[in-house]
Amino acid sequence: MATDPPEPVEASSDTPPTPRIRSDARQEQLIDIAIRLFARKGYEGTSLRDIAEEARITKAALYYHFPNKEELYERIVLASMQNLVDTVSAAMAEGATPADRVRLFMLASADFLDRSRDSWIAGSNAFWSNRDAQPRAVTVRLRDTYERLLRDSIRDAIDQGQFRPVDPAMAGRMLLSMLNHLCRWHKLGGRLGTREVIDQYLDMAFGGLSAPAKP
Amino acid sequence: MATDPPEPVEASSDTPPTPRIRSDARQEQLIDIAIRLFARKGYEGTSLRDIAEEARITKAALYYHFPNKEELYERIVLASMQNLVDTVSAAMAEGATPADRVRLFMLASADFLDRSRDSWIAGSNAFWSNRDAQPRAVTVRLRDTYERLLRDSIRDAIDQGQFRPVDPAMAGRMLLSMLNHLCRWHKLGGRLGTREVIDQYLDMAFGGLSAPAKP
Repeated sequence: MATDPPEPVEASSDTPPTPRIRSDARQEQLIDIAIRLFARKGYEGTSLRDIAEEARITKAALYYHFPNKEELYERIVLASMQNLVDTVSAAMAEGATPADRVRLFMLASADFLDRSRDSWIAGSNAFWSNRDAQPRAVTVRLRDTYERLLRDSIRDAIDQGQFRPVDPAMAGRMLLSMLNHLCRWHKLGGRLGTREVIDQYLDMAFGGLSAPAKP
Repeated sequence: MATDPPEPVEASSDTPPTPRIRSDARQEQLIDIAIRLFARKGYEGTSLRDIAEEARITKAALYYHFPNKEELYERIVLASMQNLVDTVSAAMAEGATPADRVRLFMLASADFLDRSRDSWIAGSNAFWSNRDAQPRAVTVRLRDTYERLLRDSIRDAIDQGQFRPVDPAMAGRMLLSMLNHLCRWHKLGGRLGTREVIDQYLDMAFGGLSAPAKP
């Protein structure tokens, strides 16, 4: 590398913390740009150069914050997944029955998709793309925690007789398919909100497409 | 470009057609490689150089067959979509009722996913990725034809009282989500085949997750 990155400024006890705060704000800005580019162009299609160009900084300045693309990506995915798990768990705590909790899992995830769609796509790509690098164990654990919230409620709903005796893992995958595919066709700010779409999906998935048999 | 691509060899009536056949076979080989790379690394992440390297030919030789990435991509997507529409239409013709035809649409698509998973992913990315280039009108028409096969059968099933009065477009999207997301988690040659997964999904989507109300 031709240019050395600037040294980090350590705030001592008698200097104001401004430089550190500015650095955090810059990191936030870089992360926002990276989330957008990773979501739009994929992990493989996004280079650190693209991110530096969009942020109008030198590649060396970017290296100071993030020495490599993997680290930046992992940080985005981790923060996004942790946020998703926290939000969805909190929403599910309001459900009176397991079937309610399945519904709340889906609706809280829909709200997350509204607020943080690019993060969702970046996080989703981290698991589902065929890129050679494996996601780190901590990322896999968070994904498993998220999926388990759904699967456990499905299992409980079956145990309590609210759901038919389906395979909880397959039912979970079916519901997650709806969320994951939504990013690919649904436009934010369109006729139907994310929550309305998921509401219709839930009505169909819970009640079934088939008309009730005539008595 | 430093090197001119070789001129195409036109077979005259008194020369054997071998060169043309060889050229077609080479094109097939290049298309197979391109499908695999586009599926693995996305449109943005794949360069003509990658394809040339994998095929062990010069970039100039690749240019002779495909002057640019867009053209190669469009050709792959078009051939794949046409194949999908033909296969699925033929399968649906065997269905006695509209609900049967919905089921056959999904199962024939599952078979296509088994045989041509990389083509499916490349075709799917062509519509759903946020890349700047818009798919050509003919590609959009084929996608619409495919989706209409499903949607029309859903509408007919509602009209004939086999399905509940749901929104046919939303029901179609829900079912297509299951197919589209399957590529992202299901491994070919795993415990459950693609058709078995879709069979379970259809049972849940048709019959609903909710247990029937007790009389």
